[in-house]
Amino acid sequence: MPEVGIGIAGYGMMAKAHAYAYTVAPVMRSLGCRPRLRLISGRDRDKVSRAAAAYGFEAWTADWHDLLDRRDVDIVDICTPPGTHAEIAEAAAAAGKAVICEKPLAVSFAQAAAAAEAVRQAGVLNAVGFNYRRLPAVSLMKRMIDEGGVGSVRLLRAVWLSDEFVDPAIPFDWRFDRSMGGTTIADLGSHLIDMATWMAGGIAEVSGQSATFVPRRSNQAVTVDDASSALVRFESGALGVFEMARMAVRRPCDFTIEVNGDRGTLAFAYPRLNELLYGEGADRPGLYGMRTIRAEHESHPYARNWWPVGQGVGYGATFVNHLGDLLDRYPEGPWEPDFAQGASVQAVCEAIERSAAERRWVAVSEVMAGAGIRP
Amino acid sequence: MPEVGIGIAGYGMMAKAHAYAYTVAPVMRSLGCRPRLRLISGRDRDKVSRAAAAYGFEAWTADWHDLLDRRDVDIVDICTPPGTHAEIAEAAAAAGKAVICEKPLAVSFAQAAAAAEAVRQAGVLNAVGFNYRRLPAVSLMKRMIDEGGVGSVRLLRAVWLSDEFVDPAIPFDWRFDRSMGGTTIADLGSHLIDMATWMAGGIAEVSGQSATFVPRRSNQAVTVDDASSALVRFESGALGVFEMARMAVRRPCDFTIEVNGDRGTLAFAYPRLNELLYGEGADRPGLYGMRTIRAEHESHPYARNWWPVGQGVGYGATFVNHLGDLLDRYPEGPWEPDFAQGASVQAVCEAIERSAAERRWVAVSEVMAGAGIRP
Amino acid sequence: MPEVGIGIAGYGMMAKAHAYAYTVAPVMRSLGCRPRLRLISGRDRDKVSRAAAAYGFEAWTADWHDLLDRRDVDIVDICTPPGTHAEIAEAAAAAGKAVICEKPLAVSFAQAAAAAEAVRQAGVLNAVGFNYRRLPAVSLMKRMIDEGGVGSVRLLRAVWLSDEFVDPAIPFDWRFDRSMGGTTIADLGSHLIDMATWMAGGIAEVSGQSATFVPRRSNQAVTVDDASSALVRFESGALGVFEMARMAVRRPCDFTIEVNGDRGTLAFAYPRLNELLYGEGADRPGLYGMRTIRAEHESHPYARNWWPVGQGVGYGATFVNHLGDLLDRYPEGPWEPDFAQGASVQAVCEAIERSAAERRWVAVSEVMAGAGIRP
Amino acid sequence: MPEVGIGIAGYGMMAKAHAYAYTVAPVMRSLGCRPRLRLISGRDRDKVSRAAAAYGFEAWTADWHDLLDRRDVDIVDICTPPGTHAEIAEAAAAAGKAVICEKPLAVSFAQAAAAAEAVRQAGVLNAVGFNYRRLPAVSLMKRMIDEGGVGSVRLLRAVWLSDEFVDPAIPFDWRFDRSMGGTTIADLGSHLIDMATWMAGGIAEVSGQSATFVPRRSNQAVTVDDASSALVRFESGALGVFEMARMAVRRPCDFTIEVNGDRGTLAFAYPRLNELLYGEGADRPGLYGMRTIRAEHESHPYARNWWPVGQGVGYGATFVNHLGDLLDRYPEGPWEPDFAQGASVQAVCEAIERSAAERRWVAVSEVMAGAGIRP
Repeated sequence: MPEVGIGIAGYGMMAKAHAYAYTVAPVMRSLGCRPRLRLISGRDRDKVSRAAAAYGFEAWTADWHDLLDRRDVDIVDICTPPGTHAEIAEAAAAAGKAVICEKPLAVSFAQAAAAAEAVRQAGVLNAVGFNYRRLPAVSLMKRMIDEGGVGSVRLLRAVWLSDEFVDPAIPFDWRFDRSMGGTTIADLGSHLIDMATWMAGGIAEVSGQSATFVPRRSNQAVTVDDASSALVRFESGALGVFEMARMAVRRPCDFTIEVNGDRGTLAFAYPRLNELLYGEGADRPGLYGMRTIRAEHESHPYARNWWPVGQGVGYGATFVNHLGDLLDRYPEGPWEPDFAQGASVQAVCEAIERSAAERRWVAVSEVMAGAGIRP
Repeated sequence: MPEVGIGIAGYGMMAKAHAYAYTVAPVMRSLGCRPRLRLISGRDRDKVSRAAAAYGFEAWTADWHDLLDRRDVDIVDICTPPGTHAEIAEAAAAAGKAVICEKPLAVSFAQAAAAAEAVRQAGVLNAVGFNYRRLPAVSLMKRMIDEGGVGSVRLLRAVWLSDEFVDPAIPFDWRFDRSMGGTTIADLGSHLIDMATWMAGGIAEVSGQSATFVPRRSNQAVTVDDASSALVRFESGALGVFEMARMAVRRPCDFTIEVNGDRGTLAFAYPRLNELLYGEGADRPGLYGMRTIRAEHESHPYARNWWPVGQGVGYGATFVNHLGDLLDRYPEGPWEPDFAQGASVQAVCEAIERSAAERRWVAVSEVMAGAGIRP
Repeated sequence: MPEVGIGIAGYGMMAKAHAYAYTVAPVMRSLGCRPRLRLISGRDRDKVSRAAAAYGFEAWTADWHDLLDRRDVDIVDICTPPGTHAEIAEAAAAAGKAVICEKPLAVSFAQAAAAAEAVRQAGVLNAVGFNYRRLPAVSLMKRMIDEGGVGSVRLLRAVWLSDEFVDPAIPFDWRFDRSMGGTTIADLGSHLIDMATWMAGGIAEVSGQSATFVPRRSNQAVTVDDASSALVRFESGALGVFEMARMAVRRPCDFTIEVNGDRGTLAFAYPRLNELLYGEGADRPGLYGMRTIRAEHESHPYARNWWPVGQGVGYGATFVNHLGDLLDRYPEGPWEPDFAQGASVQAVCEAIERSAAERRWVAVSEVMAGAGIRP
Repeated sequence: MPEVGIGIAGYGMMAKAHAYAYTVAPVMRSLGCRPRLRLISGRDRDKVSRAAAAYGFEAWTADWHDLLDRRDVDIVDICTPPGTHAEIAEAAAAAGKAVICEKPLAVSFAQAAAAAEAVRQAGVLNAVGFNYRRLPAVSLMKRMIDEGGVGSVRLLRAVWLSDEFVDPAIPFDWRFDRSMGGTTIADLGSHLIDMATWMAGGIAEVSGQSATFVPRRSNQAVTVDDASSALVRFESGALGVFEMARMAVRRPCDFTIEVNGDRGTLAFAYPRLNELLYGEGADRPGLYGMRTIRAEHESHPYARNWWPVGQGVGYGATFVNHLGDLLDRYPEGPWEPDFAQGASVQAVCEAIERSAAERRWVAVSEVMAGAGIRP
């Protein structure tokens, strides 16, 4: 079996999750190639060297440019903070590497669009780390919508609550700095937007609002939103509501997404990640209610790669399923979601941000046009 | 014990629920007076006479004006469709009756404000039927917020999903006619707005959107929204999100309301109506998570009137608790929520409606000013 | 509509619940007769007189024998502690009254069987207060089993957990006194046994165990079990497991009952009393899981008497449904469950008790034979 | 870092899970050694060779004896059907290998005890695959019990429901053959017994019942139980109830375990495997109810090895945590649970089996004595 060389930029939690996935995927499922963890980069020599040993990399470097120079690195996987994504991605593409980039793709739509254009011109495979799509239950939800399980989508709501920012004593870092891309809209909302548009199609326009409840940390001004929400009009005419907040006490990472169509309802809640609720309009009236589908049946997405039904997977499975799919389609492709989709998500994020700032409905096409992109 | 004469206008489901409550309240709790069901009115002689017998009324009439003429009717309780509320309420007030009016108070803010002014000038007790406040768990939620359980409120979300309008074959009736007051914003949203403002204070401005997915029924144009959502800015600066829809398949009457403050989270979901979720920021870290409070402990609102903890109450309890409170405070008062609060809720409903139509943020004060009311 | 005179013996929580039901039933549903609360009895004059006023009785007495002498009392409803049930029931039957008796019917099978024989010989209508049968979801569960929804029943488990006895400082009273009938087996278990045998048929034999964790209260020996459990063999060959405990911290009244047949599973949990879980073996494999039936659909038992689907009923509805059914079938009958069923339940209770004491399997027929009853 | 050579006997689902764990553990946590997957054995050359490639083994063999001969195999990990466990384990111990054996340890207590004696005499590290102990929430439950969170344990109930055997068309295989060790008591019950005794101490005696609902498959007699249940008396005097069934339609793998002590309740349900319910008797009365602990807080067992709180782990984590602990304590030890504990569990299994056959209470000590072991 051919080997494919992996280089990861960054050594934090995301790098750990990706290393986990590269290690696990070949055990859990058949793949067209076998990944080898060639090189990991990070500026802190001490930490990156320890990460390299722990994650099983053959080598480490303090300079991410080394990833580009290595012939045996086929895929550059970017797990650094958002502010650095686009630069690394563009350089990797220019070096002819396939590129996987954690979300959000960039700190602005313009930057994301430029990155998308760069990979297009370079003709390299490219993907954005919207891993939650590959939750088995979320993949099943998408499949059921595509198969007509809810009919025509009319309403969609998606909420992500965390308590990451509740403590006002958390010191200032890049997450609180707009220029580094750390908005709550981009951090949490980008996942919701990706899943929502995957399921219900493109978003035409938005009305947003934001708040920063802890305006200063470590005596520096916080320049990102602590919480935002948005009304959304899909191109199809469906209505959507999004909310994303890092200020919800005792909500560790609770996201929910629900779709109501003219023939059914599908609802997912991350705290019960192996389940999917399905309300089927045509079900026998005497059984009025919803099914709790155990989204691990052998007929469900990814189920055969994992455990017998009822045993359950966790967060890690999203990375195994995602990166496994990418490896399995390497080098032919296509990969999805790709940078173009990542840029589209970024356009919606930016539309929400602009809408909140200007207190008016903003069309996503306006954001795209403003960046010189024809929607 | 003094008796108080009750006259109900209308004989449908709401009248049944109120009759249930007047019958039950004296059994379940001590009251300052004993209600007597004197007279019920309705235009369909056959139906109203049967309702009178079933609900235990002493008499019935086809003309609601008869309620005003009866000396032994002390309280006029209005359970007719919204389009008729204000007229009956004003007449009852003019006749010196205490008035209880189902929600929404009127079909417009101007009409609601006029009704509120009428009862104020008449000096009669007045109340609006926001019964869900008196769900024990919702009352407990309010009490805990007032006692500082969540600290300063930052975020509030409230969603009401029903499937009442899903079937396109439902023929046209008053619920689909804007002039009769049957918007989804007013029908479902008014409850959410009432609970939200009760818990988190006044709403300053809103951005709304609406859709009508089934535009014609029985060959008539549907002039109400099937579903709406709104962003909300509270006067305190807190952010809110509302959604109300009668187009959610297999969602019979599922409303949720959650409040996130700087020190805690409280969340209620109607399908588990005897429970209240509480995430307390100061709780021991090792117990990270939320408590599921069984909102029936003897220390909780209304609990001593009902059953031992764990047994549970249902929808009917909201009416018993609400009308019981009103009876217990008759004739001294105060009653709450009153017409003034009903009119405030209507102002928010109208602001959402206008915002959706004009696609811009609308201040609630603008609605009030437009009706000649100084906010 | 004919009136039927009600006399209640006892004025505590159960009497309140029954009074509630007699008051409510005529409002919520059509009945063949209208109940009148004629007389309530209780030894504490002060308390019973107040209860009479609160519950709406026309009169009260300190001597339950007065219930028998009143011509206008048609039904004697016994809500006193278990130790007094049989005596009052037999006297009422002898006086020609229809008799409703709270559970457990008696303090022993022999006593229960004698009471059943007494009502049989007197030819009076008789019923035992197994109210939980009339929970809409439990009634629906029974109906679905009868209609083949689970196929042939193989396994049944039923657990009732409360914390009623956790606090060792609770002083001694009749509940801790075996001679007064207050075993946990009889108090909680009798409901489980009634529901289980209703759904799955007669019980052939049992193996039980019991414990009394707080052996003395107020310096008196506690002579009842704090907790018991039992293995059960149904006559059909199905296996059952029961557990009943009043020693489960923070479990207020949490009972569950689940049936597994060769074609399906049905599960009910009292804390979600308006729901019924249904796992249907023949359901599409891709929907693997269970349905959460909202047991309030208009096609479900009792639903049309109550609220629109999704609103929910509470504990009180069990009494309204139960006593409503009895009133509706008065005076023709039949009433169910009747004293014969109450005695059958008592036989199983006694078999568990004996089995726990003698540490061996005990056939229910052995208990019956020991009392001179041919099974 | 020293390497430790792993040899696995068997190539099925359990072998996959173990291979997953050996691969993942070094990525997720620091370990004292690094496992190398040296050799995997299995009789089907085709299947074992493919498994070797997929799981990342360096070599494969059709004869498990080869595992013993290899110098570079330090740990023999037995993932074959139960009927072969003891023989392989004893041979591995004799060859000086550390031994990890999937549960149940053997097909009888005598056989299990002999295996335990063999490893003791050989002086090799030994462990049994009760992986569910290492579910973070179950480990937390144990820790909270040890720390006094529930006080003195009084009641314990544990139920395991699966639908593995529901379909009567499943052909006969070793799972239906008593001589191969495939009883439901041993397959599902052994996990429950292990967790229960870990949490609540030794079991003194049991009363069991069993049934085989599908007595023949492929025209062969099924010699195992489809479902069993047992009453249990712990040495402490606490009462227990166990149930294990592979005949519960649409119950994929739903186990629950709950402990009630004099000061608290802890309850775990596998379908929500990242949560633990805690009812604390001393909690403020106004918060009456239970906490839902998200068993992923950084202070919780294993949490620091995994993801941020709220993300969740799945079934695979049990193996990573378990085998990771063993690797981390290699070669010093101790390992737990070990063969002695595996044999103790087997004694309880056998006591339940005997009790069900002989229809009487059976002391665990009787089983042990019958095998010549002094309890």
